[in-house]
Order: sequence, then C-alpha cells, then structure tokens
Amino acid sequence: MRYSEKIILLVVSQLLLSYVLMGQEKEQYLKWEVGYHQTEDLSPEKWFPSIIPGAVQLDVMKAENYKQPYWYGNNVQQFDWMEDWYFTYKTTFDKPLLKHGQRVFFHSKGIDYQFKIFLNGNRIYEQEGMFTYVDIDLTSHLKEKNELKVLIMPVPKIKEASEYVPRTETYRQNARESVKPAVSYGWDWHPRLVTRGIWDETYLEIRNESNINNVDFTYRLSDDLKKASIDLFLKGSHLNGKNYKWLLKDKTGSIVIEKEGVLNTKINKISAQLNNPELWWPNGYGDPVLYENEIFLYDEDGAVLDEKKKNIGFRRVRLIMNEGEWERTGDFPKTRNRSPASLEVNGLRIFAKGSNWVHPEIFVGLITPETYEKQIQLAKDANFNLLRVWGGGITNKESFFDYCDKKGIMVWQEFPLACNNYSNESKYLSVLEQEATSIINRVKEHPCLAVWSGGNELFNSWSRMTEQSLSLRLLNSLCYQMTPDIPFIYTSPLYGMGHGGYVFYDESNSKGPEVFQWMAKEDKTAYTEFGISSLSSLETLKKIIPQDELFPPKSGTSWEIHHAFEAWGKDSWLQLPFLEKYFGKIESIEELVYYSQLSQSEGLKFIYEEARRQKPYCSMALNWCFQEPWPTAANNSLINWPNEIKPAYYEVANACRPVLSSLKVSKFLWSEGDEFSGELFILNDTYNSIPAGKLKVTMIYDGGKKISIAEWDYGKCKPFENQRGPIVSVKLPALKKGLFKIEIDVIGNSNLNSTYTFLCQGENVKEIIPEGIN
Amino acid sequence: MRYSEKIILLVVSQLLLSYVLMGQEKEQYLKWEVGYHQTEDLSPEKWFPSIIPGAVQLDVMKAENYKQPYWYGNNVQQFDWMEDWYFTYKTTFDKPLLKHGQRVFFHSKGIDYQFKIFLNGNRIYEQEGMFTYVDIDLTSHLKEKNELKVLIMPVPKIKEASEYVPRTETYRQNARESVKPAVSYGWDWHPRLVTRGIWDETYLEIRNESNINNVDFTYRLSDDLKKASIDLFLKGSHLNGKNYKWLLKDKTGSIVIEKEGVLNTKINKISAQLNNPELWWPNGYGDPVLYENEIFLYDEDGAVLDEKKKNIGFRRVRLIMNEGEWERTGDFPKTRNRSPASLEVNGLRIFAKGSNWVHPEIFVGLITPETYEKQIQLAKDANFNLLRVWGGGITNKESFFDYCDKKGIMVWQEFPLACNNYSNESKYLSVLEQEATSIINRVKEHPCLAVWSGGNELFNSWSRMTEQSLSLRLLNSLCYQMTPDIPFIYTSPLYGMGHGGYVFYDESNSKGPEVFQWMAKEDKTAYTEFGISSLSSLETLKKIIPQDELFPPKSGTSWEIHHAFEAWGKDSWLQLPFLEKYFGKIESIEELVYYSQLSQSEGLKFIYEEARRQKPYCSMALNWCFQEPWPTAANNSLINWPNEIKPAYYEVANACRPVLSSLKVSKFLWSEGDEFSGELFILNDTYNSIPAGKLKVTMIYDGGKKISIAEWDYGKCKPFENQRGPIVSVKLPALKKGLFKIEIDVIGNSNLNSTYTFLCQGENVKEIIPEGIN
Repeated sequence: MRYSEKIILLVVSQLLLSYVLMGQEKEQYLKWEVGYHQTEDLSPEKWFPSIIPGAVQLDVMKAENYKQPYWYGNNVQQFDWMEDWYFTYKTTFDKPLLKHGQRVFFHSKGIDYQFKIFLNGNRIYEQEGMFTYVDIDLTSHLKEKNELKVLIMPVPKIKEASEYVPRTETYRQNARESVKPAVSYGWDWHPRLVTRGIWDETYLEIRNESNINNVDFTYRLSDDLKKASIDLFLKGSHLNGKNYKWLLKDKTGSIVIEKEGVLNTKINKISAQLNNPELWWPNGYGDPVLYENEIFLYDEDGAVLDEKKKNIGFRRVRLIMNEGEWERTGDFPKTRNRSPASLEVNGLRIFAKGSNWVHPEIFVGLITPETYEKQIQLAKDANFNLLRVWGGGITNKESFFDYCDKKGIMVWQEFPLACNNYSNESKYLSVLEQEATSIINRVKEHPCLAVWSGGNELFNSWSRMTEQSLSLRLLNSLCYQMTPDIPFIYTSPLYGMGHGGYVFYDESNSKGPEVFQWMAKEDKTAYTEFGISSLSSLETLKKIIPQDELFPPKSGTSWEIHHAFEAWGKDSWLQLPFLEKYFGKIESIEELVYYSQLSQSEGLKFIYEEARRQKPYCSMALNWCFQEPWPTAANNSLINWPNEIKPAYYEVANACRPVLSSLKVSKFLWSEGDEFSGELFILNDTYNSIPAGKLKVTMIYDGGKKISIAEWDYGKCKPFENQRGPIVSVKLPALKKGLFKIEIDVIGNSNLNSTYTFLCQGENVKEIIPEGIN
Repeated sequence: MRYSEKIILLVVSQLLLSYVLMGQEKEQYLKWEVGYHQTEDLSPEKWFPSIIPGAVQLDVMKAENYKQPYWYGNNVQQFDWMEDWYFTYKTTFDKPLLKHGQRVFFHSKGIDYQFKIFLNGNRIYEQEGMFTYVDIDLTSHLKEKNELKVLIMPVPKIKEASEYVPRTETYRQNARESVKPAVSYGWDWHPRLVTRGIWDETYLEIRNESNINNVDFTYRLSDDLKKASIDLFLKGSHLNGKNYKWLLKDKTGSIVIEKEGVLNTKINKISAQLNNPELWWPNGYGDPVLYENEIFLYDEDGAVLDEKKKNIGFRRVRLIMNEGEWERTGDFPKTRNRSPASLEVNGLRIFAKGSNWVHPEIFVGLITPETYEKQIQLAKDANFNLLRVWGGGITNKESFFDYCDKKGIMVWQEFPLACNNYSNESKYLSVLEQEATSIINRVKEHPCLAVWSGGNELFNSWSRMTEQSLSLRLLNSLCYQMTPDIPFIYTSPLYGMGHGGYVFYDESNSKGPEVFQWMAKEDKTAYTEFGISSLSSLETLKKIIPQDELFPPKSGTSWEIHHAFEAWGKDSWLQLPFLEKYFGKIESIEELVYYSQLSQSEGLKFIYEEARRQKPYCSMALNWCFQEPWPTAANNSLINWPNEIKPAYYEVANACRPVLSSLKVSKFLWSEGDEFSGELFILNDTYNSIPAGKLKVTMIYDGGKKISIAEWDYGKCKPFENQRGPIVSVKLPALKKGLFKIEIDVIGNSNLNSTYTFLCQGENVKEIIPEGIN
C-alpha cells in the first residue's frame, strides 16, 4: 500500500493541523508517550515522550539519562532489565470531523511484538506478531476526546531457556515458540537486546465510504515471454456502481493499458493482455524495467474517490537443477539427486552473486528508506544481483523492496525462523500463519522477489527441524497457494548447498586449514553462506572501545562485548592466533587492523572467484554477511555499521565483475624458494561473447621489484562460459618483505585486470608490509 | 462410506427385484453392455455384455473369442489395438418408485479414466480421473424408461511419446500429464496394457431427503497418549431438527461414548473425550485395536433415517530423524542433514519391515476384497508391518485399507506419480488436485495410514522432478491441510534412503558385485526398495510359456513377453550369465528354477538381516516387490500371480522374525580352503528384553557331514537393541558338493534358529546340490 498521494495530518502537541486534499482522506500522525510497569494491571509511574517509529528502550534511554551512545563500551547492558517488564504507549486525540459515511481507522505497519490496544479504557484489539499491519475501525468507539493506549507485553521466552547464559545456543531458543526474530536474543555479532515497541509507520486514517482497500496485480507470462496476461483484483468498500480507470504506464510514462468500467461487487477482477512486455532483469543481466500501475475510483460526477499506484515488473523466475547434476549418479542403492539451486530468470541461468542481509539496525524502528537506499546501492555497486534476507532477522519495511526493484537486486526472502526447532503446537502455527500471510502479501508483487525460504539452517543438527516440521509445511502451503510461481525452499542449506566456513584459517577442516585449500576441493551447488572475519576500521574501534582497552585486545573487555572474543568459540572473530602465526608478533592496533582486513579481502576474493570458476555446476556465491546492526570490533561483514565500507568490500566487488581475469592459487602462505603457481581463467557471467585477447602475469615484491611470469593469448569466451587457461609458475625469490603481489594485466582491457596479494615466510623476510604494497 | 446396512436392489436382466428395509433406501445394481467405436461421435456397431466392475478389454475378449487366458504366451498383445478407440457402456432402467423427497443418485466408486455420462441422450456429467467417486443426482432428468451411457475416452498419451517403443523410458512418459497410473504403459514386470472402464462398485442409489452424506472422524491424542479428544463432523441433507445418536464401541462391543442430540445446520460438529484409549499398534508391536463408530439419524418419531458405521483406531505416527543422524556432521561448508526416515508409532521407534505393493491384477476391476485379504494376511505372516503402496499403481479400493487396519499393516501411500517429470500446467494440476483430494478422503481415517508420499523416484535423474515441481507442492499442501498429523514425503528415495539393487550379482557396483558385498558397506537411513530377481515356479512357467519354448529360455519368445529377457537390460530378470558363472552349465528347467530361487532367497535374507544389523541408524527394509499383476517368468516378487508363494517368501519371513540369531558373512561364493568366517548377532526389534542364552554354530556339507564351528554365550538383549557377538570361522574342507549350510542352533529356543546356504567352488566339487541340502 502506498500513501504518497494521500492527505497527511500531523498532530503536534495535541494540536490537530487539518489539511484537506480532495476532501476525502486524512492521515493523522499522533504524539505518543510511553512508560513501564512490572505487571499488566499496573499503570506506569512515569510517562516519557516517545519517538515513533522507534523502540521502548530508546525512549527510556533518553528520558532516564542512560549512558550514550548505547553501542559504546558496555552501555548496551543498561537495557537488560527491561525484558520482563510491560510497556504502555499512550496518546490522546480529538474526534476528527467526518463527512457522511467516513470512518476513522487506527493503522500501524508494525508493533513489536505482542500487544493489546485500548480506546478510552476499553480493550478493542490484541495481536501477537510484528509483521501484520494493524487496521482498526475506531469510529463507533470514538468520543469527543479520546485516549488510545498500546500495551506491549513482555519479551517472549520459553521456560527451558530461562537461565541467562550469554552466547550459548540455548539462548536463541527463546524464539522458538514465537515469530519474534531470533537474532534479538543474541548472536555472534548481535548483543542480547530484545527490542520492542512501535517500529513502523503508525497513524489515524480517515477513509471515504467508497475506497479501494487492496489491488492485487497478478500476471502470467507466455512460455516465450512475449505476452503477459494480467489479472487485477480490486477489493474495497462500497465499490458497487462506482467507475474505475486502470492505467499501466511503461518506463517512459506512456500508457500501455487503459481500461475503464463500472465496479459491481466486493471483489472485482479486471483483465488485460500486454504484448512484448519489457522484462525486469537482475543487475548484470539487463535493466530492472518497471511499469507504473494506477487505479482510480470515481464517483458518479467523475470526482476521484480513491487511487492506488504501485510499480510492477514482469519477470519469470525459477529454481532449476544445477547444470550437470542430473548426470551425477552413484551405485545402487541410489539416493536422490541434490536439490536444485540454480536461478533462471526470464529463461536464462543466472550466476547469483551477493550477500546475506542481516539487520541494518538493532533497533529496527530506526531503519529509514535512506538506510535501505544507501545499502542497496552498495550492493548494486558490488556487482551483486541477489541478497539473501536471513531468517534470523526481520522482514524489511516496504521501501526495502522498492529499492531492490529499482536497482535490480533479487531478494531471497526467508521467513523469521532461524537456528531453532520451531514448535509444532497450534498456538505457534496460528501466529505463524497470520504473520506469514502478511509477509507474503507485503512482498509478493515485487519483481525483486526471487525465492521464498522457510528460514536459516533449519535442517542442521543445531536446529533439528525436518521436512516433517509443521511450520515449514505450513509456509510451503501458504506460498504455494498465494505465489505458486515463486520458488520455495524449506531452508538453506539444502542438500548440495554449503554454509561456512567463516574464518581464513581453520585447523579442524580436513580439506586443509586455509580457505584457499578447502574451497578448491568443494563441489557445492551453491555457496549460500561463507565468510572471513576481520576487524573493523580503527575509527570504528576507537568509537566503541575505551582508549585504555584498545591495545592489546583482551577478552572480558569491550572487545568481547563487541564480538572480538568468545563470539563463536574463544578466538572469534578476532582470530589473533592465526594472525600471529602468519604475520608474527603484532605490535600495534594499526598492524592488527591491516593484517586482519587483508586476510578478509584475499580470502573472500578467493571464494567468490573459485565459486565462479566452478560454474556451470556451481550457481551461487553469497558471503556472510553484508552489513551489521551495530558497530562490532570484529565481524564477517563487508560494511561496518552504519555504512562504513571495509577494504574487503572493494575486493569482493572486483571479484564479482561480470567479466574478469582470475588466477587460481593453491594457498596464501608460501615459503622462500617455493615454486609459486596458479591457473589462469577468464570468468564470464554475462550472456555476451568476450573477444579473444592477451594478458600478462607479473610478480611484484620488495617494494616494486617485478618478475614477468607468463603471457596468455586467450580465445573468445562464449556467452555465460568461462575459459580455462594455462598453469603459470615462478620460483619465489628470497623476499625481504613478506607480502608480494601477482598482477594480471589484460592488454587493452584493464577493466579485466586482477591483483592478488600473498604472504611468504623465509629467513630473509625482515618485515611483512613492504613499501609500495599499501 | 459403507452400505452394509442399506437396502440393496439387484437388477437382473432388466428385472427389478425390490427388497425394502426401513422403507428408505435402495441400491440398484444395473446390467450393462459395452461397445467400441473409432470416433467420439460414432456409436458402437456391436454391443457386448459387460461385467462390472471390470475392464473394456475383458468384455471384448470374451465377446469376440480372443485367445485366453490373456496371460498365456503372447495373448496379451491382442489388446494393443484398443488404446485409441472409444468405448461406450450402456444400461437401461425404469424410474424407481420414490417417496416424498427421495432422490435417485448414480454412484460409481471408479471409472477409468476420462469419461462423459449421458442420460437419455443428454450429457449430464464429465470427469477426468479414476479415483474420484461419481455421485450424480439423476432425479430431475428421469423418464419412465431411462438409458444411461458412459463414454470412455481414449487412453491419455502425450505427443512426445507417441512412437510405440516397448520397454523404453519414453514409454511411460505418456502418463505425465494425467493421473492415470503409469504402470499401465509398461514396466519391467508389467506388459503395456492400458486398462480402462468401470473398475469399482457402481449402482443407482435412492436416498432419503434427510441423510448423512459424510462423517469425518478426527481426533487428537494428548502428549502422553492417555486422552483422545474426538471431533465428529456430520455432513448431510435436511439434517436440521433431526435427532442423532453417536456410539463408539470398543473391541469387546462395549459402548465407551454415547451421545444424543438434535442437529441444526448443514455441518454439525460433535465432540467427546475418550480416556485411556486402547491404541492401534502395527504388527509385532501390539494389537491393531479397532473401535466401531456408529452414527444414527432419527426422525421425530424415533425411526431410523440413516446410519453410518466404520472402524476407527487411535494411534500417533511420526517420521523422525534416524538415530545418530544428528550426530553426523561434516566440515565446512556444511550441507543439510539427511531426511528423517524412522517411523515412530505411539511414542516408540519402529523398525519397519515390509515390501512394495504393486498391482495385484493388471485389470484392477478384478480385484476383490478376497484378493486383498489373502495377500495382506501373507504380509502379516511374513512378519511385515509396512507396505509401501508404490506410486506407479492405483490407490487401492476401500477394502484394502480395512484389511490393513485389521491386520496391523501400516500403509505408506503414494499418489499416482512415478518415474516421470509430471506437468506443471494448470490442466494437470487441477485434475491432480481433484484426484488427490479424493484419495486423501478415501484413506485419511484409516489407522493403517502411516506416510503419504508424492510418488516413486521423482527426485532421480530418470524422473527429474524437484521440490520446485508444482504437483508435489500441491500434494504437500493438500495433505498438510487435510491430514496435518500424517507424515508427508515428496518421494522415495529422499536424501539418505536407498533404492536398489535388484539382482544378486552386479559387476558394475563399485562396492562389490555380490549383494553380500555392497549391502554390508552401505549406511542408508532406510532401504525402501531392493530386490533379487528369480524365476517363477515350474508350475507357473508351464502355465504361461508354451511347451516348445520352455527350455532353454530364449529372448524373443514368451520368456521375453513375461520379462525374463530385455525387461531391464538384456539379461534381466532371468540373469542367466550370473547363474552359469556361479552354478556352471545348467541342464534343465528344474535346476534353473532351483538356483535362481536359491539366489533370491539367500540374497533377500542377507539384505533384510543386514538392514536390521544396521539398526538403530537404519530404520526400514522394504523389498521390491511383494506381488505381481500377472504371471511373470522372472521377477523380483515374493509372490507369483495370483497368490503363489516363492521360496524366498519364507526366508524373508524368517529374516523378519521379531527376534532371531543372525550371521553376517562377507560373501556367498567361497573357494576350497578359504577361511570361512561370519559375525554373530542377536537381532531384537521388539520392546521386550531377551534373556541371555547359548547358541552353537555348525557347518553341514556333502550330504550331512558336520563341523562344529563355535558356541556363544550371549547376554541379555535390551528392548529394541541388537547384540553383537564374536566373529567365528572355519577352514573350508574340500567339498564334493558345492552348496553347504551354516546352522545356528539357539539352545532351548529354536524359534531363534537361523540357517544360511553358501556356495563353494573348487577342484573337488563334482556337483552343486548335495543330498540332504534340499
């Protein structure tokens, strides 16, 4: 639903400013106060001003002079006491002037999580669930002066997980009987901070007797994608006998469908056919073409009673079997083939490059359209075409999907289930059904929607759900009924997909400790999570860690609160033992940040490029994770909160270029005298042919010395096909400076150039970072 | 629906014998004729008598003096011409005498496959699908003399598979746009013979104005299984103001629930609670306790207007993760864990032993309750507790489920999809939705129902369906909505389950050619198909193969028509090269039958026992296949058509005893001088403790010579736990007769004894079958 054309009324300090357009509709934003109380029947002792949308924690923090910012040092722990308290929001307003037949609705796009609503002391509504819009007709209850209260119930918990054991798996189990995002209960990059309150747009709305409640825009594309058969379902009040006009405008504003008529029932179906629709394409494969759909409702005299506008796009998306998988077969007894994990859009296989989207803010009420716009632009600039919206977090606000539509970013939308064995009980299932239905309705018409997923890592031992779990069967059933053309998967990873690893160096991995080693031996259909942790920038570290704790980092300090220690095992995400094993004793915070970020950059570059080298069998590479909801000291993210780009982001963006040269190297850490070698590739994810050409490979070391390693005259690359080149090698000289680079220079086409950094250990190495490398 | 208490009218040669009970209801069985015609608009040139239920092929065969029986020699090919012809059934009847408000219905429980119904020349109905009951109110169309016609459309085919290439995979693709069982189009044990016609009970029925149309009996068991909360949903016509009585009787006939009241709407819900319900248990785990549910409808004067009776049972069935699977985890990147494949009934894990149920008759109209009763008794006597009703065949008639209920045989019910990539088009999906809904309604209240499955081998390369296939998502959604408490799987095999192999000796298997070798190295969650082919008995062979073709068997003869050659590759199912490699040149049909059946017996014994030795991880062993729909020359079945027991049946029954001694041996074929060895086990699938005891192992050879190999004092076995014993061994003497036996004698408990036959090759071996072995 869009309200951009509606009349808006802002209520400031009980003052009603009435601004009337078309004499029909009003939105009134109200001023709220909030207070807390220990039991449901009590009233707050104090009332504080509340900023809406927001969270109860933020209002109390401001009113009671908590240490700020909440993300500094251990300030976040100030909120711990609130979980089991009740909060009440309160507002008062005068009864609006209503024309004949007009009604007043209380509308909220999100109240987190379980709540009851009272008007003038009478309970008029209750709901469990933060994703279902609240829409209550207040008209018959209104007095001249009215008091509206929203009572927020305590945080959902289960008794089995009542003991407060930070950073254990039992912790998040509190979420397994509710549709409250599990991340709030604590994650390896998110403190325990269970936010609550009104978190999305909330207002009074005055509606005409005749209005359009909902417009469902559905279409079927012909097999050859040349025709779109469109069905529009109009739902509303008092539509009978009213005139409508339906306009569909293309990207230039030209009208391509125009229909007028008279409505006659409660639900009206209007159909039309569009020939040669311009298709919506994901980033890197074409333009994300949008059309504008408009519906106008008129009275007998031709005056506009209501109108609805939205952008829509035409595309066909499928999840098909990875190329070559059907040819894989084993001996008897045969088990099934792997699950399909290859996205096909408008008839073309897509190599999906992207990232896992988590909360951009701990306090989801603070997320604005600008938050989304900036970050989705960064995703596009990184050459990404897919974001997996991870099931541990929220389903985003409407504007998230608008920006993904506009920027050609496909959305893999998970339902709010993650790393738990969610309940099979009817109470949970009924809340889930309500919330999932609301989520599907929020997202279903956006062309960016590519895949539904039941949630995160549900079929793994730490969650223990299966295909028999009723909540997943319910979600599959709802998605099938409401959006049969959109792929649905129960969870990620499915059979054949891979999650992890998350560090550069892991001695327990039997395929080799370095990311370069295990990744080269994998054969997954899709790498839907993988990460390399790194420190945040020095600027961020100084903002969140008190000066006296800054160096050396120690557990039990703000470093630990910000996930550098004990976040996921003892040494993560800082990974100090690895860093000192590779780079020697580290003497300064600057060196620490540099080495940590270098390992993230080179590790992620290897995984993205290797996943692409494994095409066509491999279909997808999504790192863990894109951003973070508060400033961490160390994390897997590419972007520090709120929007600070880590060096790895640029390396990933380069590794995701539609076409590039690539060198597959067996390890990062070399020794003096080793025969360094790598295999050359041209990687082509586009449906263009890439002309033949020549490239040169050069080693650069010790502050600018060069060795020419090889040249390769590569042939023409076919559309969507990589080209494999020769193995090139060089005997490593006795380096004085440990870090050295390999550069690929594509003659006359520097957009395809690539550069890699490696480390050499040896007797002659006196320092790690040579001049000219930085 | 049951009609046992209803008035029945048989129409014989147009003569109406009217027998009236309660003055209310009538069933009239009509006399039918049938004829064929080449186009839809033509009428048959000749009309033949038709036996209903039956098939059009059978009626033509009799009327036109085809060679009989249809299963002899190549007689089956006489039906080939019929596929693209139309058939019309015709009957005439007088308008029945009707009391006030009474209506006449045409009711059929099955018309195969696509048809139109005409009354007095007017088309009154059409349907695609053989599993949806036809129920048409004829009343307003009736004249004094009436003619009813059923027009049967040609066999469904797809244009891509129109070329007639017997025994190829494209063959069965004709079924992929219909809900016609795929097996009719030809399988490795089923000729191409696409049956059609009226295949289940069909009659006119006179109904009172007030009647009960349907009784839905649903219940929820409390977590501790001590309380059943029952909801009865009554649906019917003119129920308002009528009195009902509801009786639930336990197995002794005692009334445990009695409720009376007045009905008031079209759908009435009546609830009750039953404390300490006696639970329904599968064979080997307790009694399959049934209750009788009765509903009576009365008029104001207390006269019975209608009644419905059915048996019901209380049980809770789940598909849970195999024991130990959650402890299995690999390196990063981690994929999902395997799919759960362990049945839990009433809180106890069950080791599922059973078989794959196929068509018991090619002409499904010939299947009677007696067919089902005999075969289900055989399944029970084989110590089976589960039948997988394979998706290539039909959903069975109602009495199948009644017998499974009574005998404690759980049913894994597949929908009619097998080995095809079924269409995603809306036409197919709408027929599938109708048929699946009917199937679910037919089966859902039977306590024997344990698992729904979408169909056979759909996620394998020869089918190429996936979790994204719309037909499977539809089936999952329907089952979730209609029977949420019953497990649903998309197909078999799922990830971790195994299908195959199907022969004793397969050189292509990398784990070893003998079934003893590959099976010992497997770690599947469930062996849901496996088989060893063998010849049928000499009596059967003589019945189906002309004397002059009998020996030696040759391809291109009746042997091939009956699946001994070219049924599944060149040498199956006879497997002559294997038999001669093991047993030498075979000189008679008697020897051939003996060796073939011996290899089936010992091979299947090994697989069932080895699957049980792999418990608790392994949860299931279901051989391919239980029976066959016509007499084959060679097949994997345990029972030859119609009901002849193969020797392997007895060995399988022994291997499935709840408790037994077992010897795990590494191979079947030994050489003179080898150190023969095997590992001892006590296998216990029951929830009883097995007392400690002693057993002796003896080798018997050359017509009665014995060598004592070992003794074992085994300890007490815990409930549902096996006990592993020592490895015992003996140096093989120079045998004169190739076959030798190993016997396990459990002292004082001969029910647990086991015997195994092996083969030794060596210079001294002069003959294979020694005296005293047979």
